[in-house]
Amino acid sequence: MEPFELTASEAAHAIRDGRLTSEALVRSCLERIEDRDPEVRAWITVDPALALAAAREADKRPAAGPLHGLPFGVKDVIDTADLPTTQNSPIFQGHRPARDAACVAIARSAGGILLGKTDTVEFASGGRKAATRNPVNLAHTPGGSSSGSGAAVGDRHVPLALGTQTGGSHIRPAAFNGIYGFKPTWGVVSREGMKHYAVSLDTLGWYGRSVADLALMAEAFQLEGMGKTPPVILAGLRVGLCRSPVWSRIEPAGEAALLLAARRLEEAGAVVVPFELPEDFSTLAEVQDVIRRGEGRASFLDLYISDRHRLHPELADHCEHNHGITTRTLTEAYDVADSCRPRFAALFESIDVILTPPAPGEAPEGLHTTGDHIFNSIWTVLHVPCLAMPCGRGTRGLPVGVQLVAPRFQDAALLAMAEAMAPVVDV
Amino acid sequence: MEPFELTASEAAHAIRDGRLTSEALVRSCLERIEDRDPEVRAWITVDPALALAAAREADKRPAAGPLHGLPFGVKDVIDTADLPTTQNSPIFQGHRPARDAACVAIARSAGGILLGKTDTVEFASGGRKAATRNPVNLAHTPGGSSSGSGAAVGDRHVPLALGTQTGGSHIRPAAFNGIYGFKPTWGVVSREGMKHYAVSLDTLGWYGRSVADLALMAEAFQLEGMGKTPPVILAGLRVGLCRSPVWSRIEPAGEAALLLAARRLEEAGAVVVPFELPEDFSTLAEVQDVIRRGEGRASFLDLYISDRHRLHPELADHCEHNHGITTRTLTEAYDVADSCRPRFAALFESIDVILTPPAPGEAPEGLHTTGDHIFNSIWTVLHVPCLAMPCGRGTRGLPVGVQLVAPRFQDAALLAMAEAMAPVVDV
Repeated sequence: MEPFELTASEAAHAIRDGRLTSEALVRSCLERIEDRDPEVRAWITVDPALALAAAREADKRPAAGPLHGLPFGVKDVIDTADLPTTQNSPIFQGHRPARDAACVAIARSAGGILLGKTDTVEFASGGRKAATRNPVNLAHTPGGSSSGSGAAVGDRHVPLALGTQTGGSHIRPAAFNGIYGFKPTWGVVSREGMKHYAVSLDTLGWYGRSVADLALMAEAFQLEGMGKTPPVILAGLRVGLCRSPVWSRIEPAGEAALLLAARRLEEAGAVVVPFELPEDFSTLAEVQDVIRRGEGRASFLDLYISDRHRLHPELADHCEHNHGITTRTLTEAYDVADSCRPRFAALFESIDVILTPPAPGEAPEGLHTTGDHIFNSIWTVLHVPCLAMPCGRGTRGLPVGVQLVAPRFQDAALLAMAEAMAPVVDV
Repeated sequence: MEPFELTASEAAHAIRDGRLTSEALVRSCLERIEDRDPEVRAWITVDPALALAAAREADKRPAAGPLHGLPFGVKDVIDTADLPTTQNSPIFQGHRPARDAACVAIARSAGGILLGKTDTVEFASGGRKAATRNPVNLAHTPGGSSSGSGAAVGDRHVPLALGTQTGGSHIRPAAFNGIYGFKPTWGVVSREGMKHYAVSLDTLGWYGRSVADLALMAEAFQLEGMGKTPPVILAGLRVGLCRSPVWSRIEPAGEAALLLAARRLEEAGAVVVPFELPEDFSTLAEVQDVIRRGEGRASFLDLYISDRHRLHPELADHCEHNHGITTRTLTEAYDVADSCRPRFAALFESIDVILTPPAPGEAPEGLHTTGDHIFNSIWTVLHVPCLAMPCGRGTRGLPVGVQLVAPRFQDAALLAMAEAMAPVVDV
């Protein structure tokens, strides 16, 4: 087995036990990238010398943080002090931030080795798509906007990567690439040094190839409850099967994965019950759209004024017509979100976790789309932690997954439940 | 009259009419700073050559944006590409961001001339205070955290300056320095490139020496309704006199200013009616405190991990004990905020604008404090636009003011009402 094939947690154990060096792992990942990335195109910037130097430094030190010696990729809308941050925008070509974004600084402090920057939809917002292709079938999208991070982890270029989500930019690529993705509760990880899009929605997330991988990064970010949450027993775990108010957009592969996961969980002793959101939650997908566009106006105004001709028309539109969104419609959207968020946790009286689709189905064909974020919007507006987990393949041979959702701030509990569920769901 | 004595809007007119050059205005401001700042200490960085060069460039161009040729100061927690951004923190001494913050870029695109960076409470959050003194009485605080911006505009070093507010960091210094301050609706101006503290509260604001000055900057930021809002007739304007749920913290000077403003408005034909917030809004001051600290944990975690010994203990505390604030108390605080925000606009059925204190009274003596933000917290949590307006002096000879508040997104309407009220309130 080559080091690049290890999950982050397997590699972490191997490094701690002295069976693997960070340098060997990074070298293996770099070779994998050299081998695969001409086709997959997950990366905008990789700096082998920088990564190898950092790995050698790590190998000299005793393991300290949870990410000790582990390479990670960073979506190129997140600032890095020693690699350009292009936002996949013509305006930011060659841009060199003076400091790491807070999340990058924390991942490095926890021992992580920055391997490079991954391709993204322009500003994680719209406009120019990533050049990245789905590693399972290059004719298909890897999802987006965290396209490169999702594909890089899926194709085993790197065991961990950071992405972002404002609509469904993080969870959907996890499903399309057959990997694990975690979007924590809104606000628990600093977004300083990330491109702003819709500040009341923007959330940093991360990818791995196991729940344990996701937990390593959650430990690095010191999410509340990490390290203190007892293991979850699957028997008796109450799983709310939520088709969600946007079920009409489901595809056969997505439906099959959801029902397969539910059946496997039931067979393992979990109690799967149908779960429906209250009627008025059904507008939350539209609410997400209005907030995203409404807040997006402020987020692009500086570039719209200074660099209009290089800003993609889709993004310039936020400052022009903006689909007719006014402060009145934005206020109404805020009011709905504000009324739903406080009521969500109370829905968990009879269930422990929600099981719901992370995407309509398999990754669509073509790179002109990154797929539909409709199964993500509601949860993003609710600010709740979401976890994507693989669950087999669709009829076209592409990965499909399921999504787990818990109340705000139940990040550690969600990871613990996922840890118990993964061995039966992702087989 | 020296150019530095002009308000921003007076200077803008003079420049447009060819009676003043930007260079002459900048030169006059620089002389004023040289004269006064050894005592006032409003500025961390001033680069005369840079400002004069920009002014000369402006003088070569026809007036384009609303800030054409006008110098402005920037609180030193806001990134500038050509001046250091120190955050008044030992960690950031000499730090040079690679890009302007979005708000700085927009102000420059609108013709503004960056004069320099103003002193601030460390990270606009806590810990190290600004060295700035109240220009009216050097033994007193100018307020904070936007200490330098408030004092610089008050002492006529510069006609306009940017500040920020998470609790009462912007409106309170306006009152203490006898100037006008505006905090727009949360989210309508990008905070990209500003230090994050509590993302769901952080708001950019600006200072001027008239309502027209504030409107110039609001035009630069293209706030909805600017340029389309008809003038307000004072006669019949319904003003809700709101002592606020924290009235027990008022001081005689603050009470006198509020009642004086109310009387002057009534004499001018406005209809002043008592206004009380619903009972449950009274917890919003505490809610602000919990959200500020709760979200502040994520905002300081990177520095806490990487640079603990140089991070002020008050800020490190956010990542340690944090006054016992947990995700449970934070959730409860969010829930109260979420329940109050949607109901606030409906309270304006019988009034047009709220008149309330911007601070307990005069600026306290000493630089160990920046005063009490208790009269600001509620409005900050509600995300509503706030405007501070001078209203005479207290018994110690220091400025006192009043605060006007409107519903979310009524920024342009609030400025128009303030424009009508200022000639009778600030006499």
